[in-house]
Parts: sequence; structure tokens; C-alpha cells
Amino acid sequence: MRSLAKLPGIGMRSAERITYHLLKASNEEALDLADAIRDIKLRIRHCSICYNLTEADPCPICTDTRRDQSLVCVVEQPKDLLSIEAAGTYRGVYHVLLGRLTPLDGIGPGDLTLDGLFKRLSMPAIDGSAIAELILATNPTMEGDTTSLHIQNIVQQRFPKVAITRLARGLPTGSSIEFANKNMLTDAMAGRQRV
Amino acid sequence: MRSLAKLPGIGMRSAERITYHLLKASNEEALDLADAIRDIKLRIRHCSICYNLTEADPCPICTDTRRDQSLVCVVEQPKDLLSIEAAGTYRGVYHVLLGRLTPLDGIGPGDLTLDGLFKRLSMPAIDGSAIAELILATNPTMEGDTTSLHIQNIVQQRFPKVAITRLARGLPTGSSIEFANKNMLTDAMAGRQRV
Repeated sequence: MRSLAKLPGIGMRSAERITYHLLKASNEEALDLADAIRDIKLRIRHCSICYNLTEADPCPICTDTRRDQSLVCVVEQPKDLLSIEAAGTYRGVYHVLLGRLTPLDGIGPGDLTLDGLFKRLSMPAIDGSAIAELILATNPTMEGDTTSLHIQNIVQQRFPKVAITRLARGLPTGSSIEFANKNMLTDAMAGRQRV
Repeated sequence: MRSLAKLPGIGMRSAERITYHLLKASNEEALDLADAIRDIKLRIRHCSICYNLTEADPCPICTDTRRDQSLVCVVEQPKDLLSIEAAGTYRGVYHVLLGRLTPLDGIGPGDLTLDGLFKRLSMPAIDGSAIAELILATNPTMEGDTTSLHIQNIVQQRFPKVAITRLARGLPTGSSIEFANKNMLTDAMAGRQRV
């Protein structure tokens, strides 16, 4: 009970309920859970190329030769990668920063996987291609923008041949102009494109 | 009471409360309201250039020579114009369609202010300049897109010199990639821009 109650969102009452459930459950169900929890620490690690969570290293995305290995999308966290994968249209690879620059919390450039990113930029990818484009897909927040700007400055200086892009900022599909806020309308107007 | 109860959002109970309020109010307050209601029908009309609601015709935006009269932002409704004006960064003029194409409701091209738009495109603006760019700022919905596409097709054919742009579609500032839906991420990725 004490071990369970340390998990996020599980209080003493829930821990008690889960404990009684496990006592009543079959040996198999309880041991399956124990094994899964052990496996998560033993088998899941960070990919040595993109730093996404994976069982195999390099991860299945980094070794997928049907993907465009010259196109790298830089995200803050593994959950952002999952979200873009769920959209189902991106066919390049990723680089997971495992955080974003938040000086107030003491998180600086050294805490992100930037060295790994610069190493990737200076050598051929797994299929022999060089990275041609870096898509900065940090969150559209002040901290995300600061992180992207930091990466942009270094990459432009050290790897001038690499194209740097960022995700389009503007009105989300299905929204309305009437209820859009000032930032959304300013971004949408500033980023308007020829049709 | 019966007149008040016909207004949207006012039921019989509210109408009763308002009626008693007016009976107790000063002559001046009651007559001010009566005058304001009369004025709204007598004095507010559509601008003969941009079709926005206005007291003076042409409206103050169409006659403002500090604005870029060669840049026309096409919106569905006056409330969309207000929203863009409230953002405070747009310095061109507008054209209000007074609707959008919704064939299911029987609203076709003839019900919008398209003739007025094409007339504006074929003659000099109030300051003598020709319209150089049309920003299609219909709502980011299926009906809004259909309306923009219809305008785009005609303008490209009849006024090939006019640049046609549309508002940027993508992630709203302050949102997060993790909780963005598929459409938002696809738009943001497809519309990514060089930095």
C-alpha cells in the first residue's frame, strides 16, 4: 500500500483498493504487473540517436529506412513525438530534447540533448544521407520559443547548410476568427501565405 | 413586455424585470434607450465600399488615408473585422462578405457582397491606388474554406495581377503540441516556414 500510494494520482484509499484487488486477483495477473514494472526500468531506455524512449537501441524510427532520414523534427518530450506520430502525416525522423530552456528552474542548454543533436548534424545519418532540414517543433510558448531560438543560433553558425524551419503558427483549423485572441490573429496575419 | 420578450436571450421574466426598471427609471434614461434603438435602424447602415456596419458612408476605415488602401482583408462578418481590429496590428482595409457559402442553407455566391468586391478590384481605391493584395480571412472551417476557394478562383481568372494570400493555419501561440489535434499538427507541419 505504501509503495502504491507514492504513485501520482493514487492516494491511500486507492492504494488500499488496489492492494485488495491484487490479493483477490490470480497469481498470473499480479505477476504480469510486477514483471511489467520491472521491465519498464530494465528494457525501456533512451535511443542513443534521437533520445526517444525505446526498447531497441537505435529505436525503430531511427532505423526505419522508409523514413526521410535527412529531415529531423526537434521536439521537447517523447509525448510530443507521440502526438506528431498520431497525426500520421510526418515521414521524417525526430530529435527529443528531453526538456526546454527554463532558467528559472535551473534548466540550461547543458541539460538538454543538444550535444547529441550537433553530433547528428556533423555526421551522415543511418542511411548515409546528411541532415538537410531541421524542423524546430518546440511548444508555441515563451520557453519553447527561447529553446528554438537558442538551437537556431548555434545551428546557423556551425551548420550553415542545414535549412531551419519552424511549425506554422496561426489559427487552428475549425476555430473562428471572432473568438481568436490577439496573438493568434497577429500570427495568422503575419504568417499569411500566397495561395 | 411583449416587445422586449422577442429579443434573443430575454424571456418573459427578464422582460418583466426590465419593464419595471424602466417604469422606475428617470424619463431621461428611458428616452435615451428609445432613441438609441431608433438610431440603430435609422443611422447604422452598410458601408457602400466595404459593407461593414457604419454611421458614415463610406466608413471611417475606407476613408482613412493612413491605412494601406491597396491591401484588402476579406472577412465573413462585421464581428470578424472587429476581432482583427482589436488585435491592433493590421493596417490595411477590409471587405465584409456578410455571409459565407452554405449551399445547404440556400446561401450561394449571389447572397454575398462579391459584386462589390469585384467592382473594387477593377477600379482605383479612394486614395488612387490599385488593390495589390487580397487576404482571404474567412473562418478556418469547411464553409469558410469553400467561400475563400470560390473567391480565389474568380479573382485569379479575372484579376491575375492581384496577389491572393490566406491567413496562416497552424498551432495557436500558447498551446501545446502534446494536446494539439491531428488537423492542427498537419497544418503546422505542412505550413512550416524558414527561420
